Amino acid sequence: MDFKIIKGGISAPKGFFSNGIACGLKKVKEDLALIVSNSPCEFAGTFTTNIVAAAPVIWDRKIVKEQNKAQAIVINSANANACTGKQGLLDTEKMAEITAIALNKNFPEINKENVLVCSTGVIGVPLQMDKIKVGIENCSTVLKADETSALNTAKAIMTTDKTIKEIAISTLIDGKEVKIGAIAKGSGMIHPNMATMLSFITTDAKIKKETLQKLLGNSVEDSYNMICVDGDTSTNDTVLVLANGESSDTFLEDNEENLAKFKEAFEFVNTYLAKEIIKDGEGAGTFISVNIKNASSIKAAKTLAKSIVKSSLVKAAFFGSDANFGRILCAMGYSGAFFDLEKLDLSFKSSKGTIDVVKQGLPIAFDEKKAKEILLEKEVVVDVTLQDGNSDATAWGCDLSYEYVRINGDYRS
Amino acid sequence: MDFKIIKGGISAPKGFFSNGIACGLKKVKEDLALIVSNSPCEFAGTFTTNIVAAAPVIWDRKIVKEQNKAQAIVINSANANACTGKQGLLDTEKMAEITAIALNKNFPEINKENVLVCSTGVIGVPLQMDKIKVGIENCSTVLKADETSALNTAKAIMTTDKTIKEIAISTLIDGKEVKIGAIAKGSGMIHPNMATMLSFITTDAKIKKETLQKLLGNSVEDSYNMICVDGDTSTNDTVLVLANGESSDTFLEDNEENLAKFKEAFEFVNTYLAKEIIKDGEGAGTFISVNIKNASSIKAAKTLAKSIVKSSLVKAAFFGSDANFGRILCAMGYSGAFFDLEKLDLSFKSSKGTIDVVKQGLPIAFDEKKAKEILLEKEVVVDVTLQDGNSDATAWGCDLSYEYVRINGDYRS
Repeated sequence: MDFKIIKGGISAPKGFFSNGIACGLKKVKEDLALIVSNSPCEFAGTFTTNIVAAAPVIWDRKIVKEQNKAQAIVINSANANACTGKQGLLDTEKMAEITAIALNKNFPEINKENVLVCSTGVIGVPLQMDKIKVGIENCSTVLKADETSALNTAKAIMTTDKTIKEIAISTLIDGKEVKIGAIAKGSGMIHPNMATMLSFITTDAKIKKETLQKLLGNSVEDSYNMICVDGDTSTNDTVLVLANGESSDTFLEDNEENLAKFKEAFEFVNTYLAKEIIKDGEGAGTFISVNIKNASSIKAAKTLAKSIVKSSLVKAAFFGSDANFGRILCAMGYSGAFFDLEKLDLSFKSSKGTIDVVKQGLPIAFDEKKAKEILLEKEVVVDVTLQDGNSDATAWGCDLSYEYVRINGDYRS
Repeated sequence: MDFKIIKGGISAPKGFFSNGIACGLKKVKEDLALIVSNSPCEFAGTFTTNIVAAAPVIWDRKIVKEQNKAQAIVINSANANACTGKQGLLDTEKMAEITAIALNKNFPEINKENVLVCSTGVIGVPLQMDKIKVGIENCSTVLKADETSALNTAKAIMTTDKTIKEIAISTLIDGKEVKIGAIAKGSGMIHPNMATMLSFITTDAKIKKETLQKLLGNSVEDSYNMICVDGDTSTNDTVLVLANGESSDTFLEDNEENLAKFKEAFEFVNTYLAKEIIKDGEGAGTFISVNIKNASSIKAAKTLAKSIVKSSLVKAAFFGSDANFGRILCAMGYSGAFFDLEKLDLSFKSSKGTIDVVKQGLPIAFDEKKAKEILLEKEVVVDVTLQDGNSDATAWGCDLSYEYVRINGDYRS
């Protein structure tokens, strides 16, 4: 790991400013955030695969496709602006426009087409645009690059989240300090192929748009797309990256080693946030890592790992700290991916030790008390070793608890 | 509906005998059942798609493929005989053999290849064959065609089920009474493409094996494959039909109208049992029917309906009697099936009335109090009307409750 974790969150990289304020969409808490760069940014985005895409997703997809530069992101929580029809699209565009105008006092070059928009919260309710307008205007006057503002930004994008998810790292590339800052939100409706999950990444790295998009696409596959809280893929999932290039005059692409170094740090940030989301999974008490080893292909490895973390029965077993390996094998069996059961080994591990429960496809006698002790820990690992090939994958999930049901039984009220 | 519901359950049809007894696999309850026909039967079966298929599934698939006739079914609950390797396969074959030998006192023509075997319960634990042997031998001495024995049979196949699932119907075909009897079990691990679900159907109809297999395959598609408790497809799912032909000398195939009449009754029986399984879904408090109308294809209609009943977030919303239509649209959106959101209408109904919540893809103002009243009922219908084509489908599911989590948190102990 050739980088260090630093303070400063989303505005740690050079030239980025942000803040989060309360504009009244939530009862009292922060619900509107702005992230702005000093200078126009190379940028990239990945979005939900849900065909019921929210209005801001439709806007951002267009901006990513058509624009060369972006410079700001505006986010509201409490309302997803999804299933809101033509009005929803108009409201999103208006949010971009209000943001551009408000920012023009300090950043005169910003147009609405340089503003990315995200919304998260309840589906099917029109935005309260009067509140949002005042919110954007107020927030634009308090943009800063300090820790508190970064923290406010992270808070303002939260919905059912109980923890603030932010990180910043610093690395030396070609003798120059390059920083990455990032925040994320997400707790329920979390599933491979994105989640009700927003993640924003800023960096002062000098990198081209196409490279950034490629790096992002690959990194998302191994991070946000490998986590599951409940199997529901939301209408609003978005990951956005802004890179303003202020750390250097040389593009990362000019040197393979430099790019590799950045890639490593960038992937670390995404994996870190993905895991933070799972740790904060709605009602989650146990953080589960599933490692599939020696699968026949990367696709098979990922499919098997994801099927396990997605199974309600596996998740409920972890809630009960029950070494119910049968449900794990069952979830692998219906995943659609091939594996040779007769050559499968399975073990559980945690800080309390390791216990083997299946060897060559057959259950082996194990100490139930020891297994319970291992599974009662907050972080548990499932190791599944196959003999089908050389491909490995890891997925992360959490248990299914009473609390999950309580949170989601009456979310709207 | 050209048939009437009668008493007698699985042994209502002419020439069938059954019983269920306790052999000690469960602590005190019935755990072993036999179903036998007087004479050799045409038969059919459908099985789990899980590649981790239990030993009895492997046996039954072979029998369905290779044998012309079957005459008995032996079932144990409490142990699924899944993930039990070669020993599991030997134990299944042994169960068939013990059954054949025990039945030979009264049915000398039965070989082990005429005996279908089913197991349900915990995965990964070897069968206690000594108990099973004594159980089969004892059960074979108490086979009857009365209501109590039929009820015992239905009880002996239960695991976490709280209700007994049995039905029998009688219909007149060509002037002769034809009867169908059936029992099922299943409560958790229930998902489209079968479930930890066993269903056994007996009939005295005279029908050929190929026809029976075809009827069964189609009927399963619209019944057991359209229900979902938790999205987990088990290792043991099996539906078996035995038809001994004792009601008539003429094959149903000889007359299209006769076959159609039987088909109607047969499908009613399967749909009835599928719905009974959902009503008894682990921890279920609300029975949810989802009707998709005017979809672009049957496949799309089924995919959309199933995606809704499978969504943890939709299920949790029903637990809270929350009219959260956004989650329904979201679940449709990630289903993979096409639909035109802008032409979609959605309403909820129950015995308390109907409430429209989405018109032409947009949320409409509705009376939340009225919605709550409708959704607090035990049986709730979601009507989704599209304008994409002429295909309809219905799926059935239940809410996700604290109780589901409790039941599955510590199933093995």
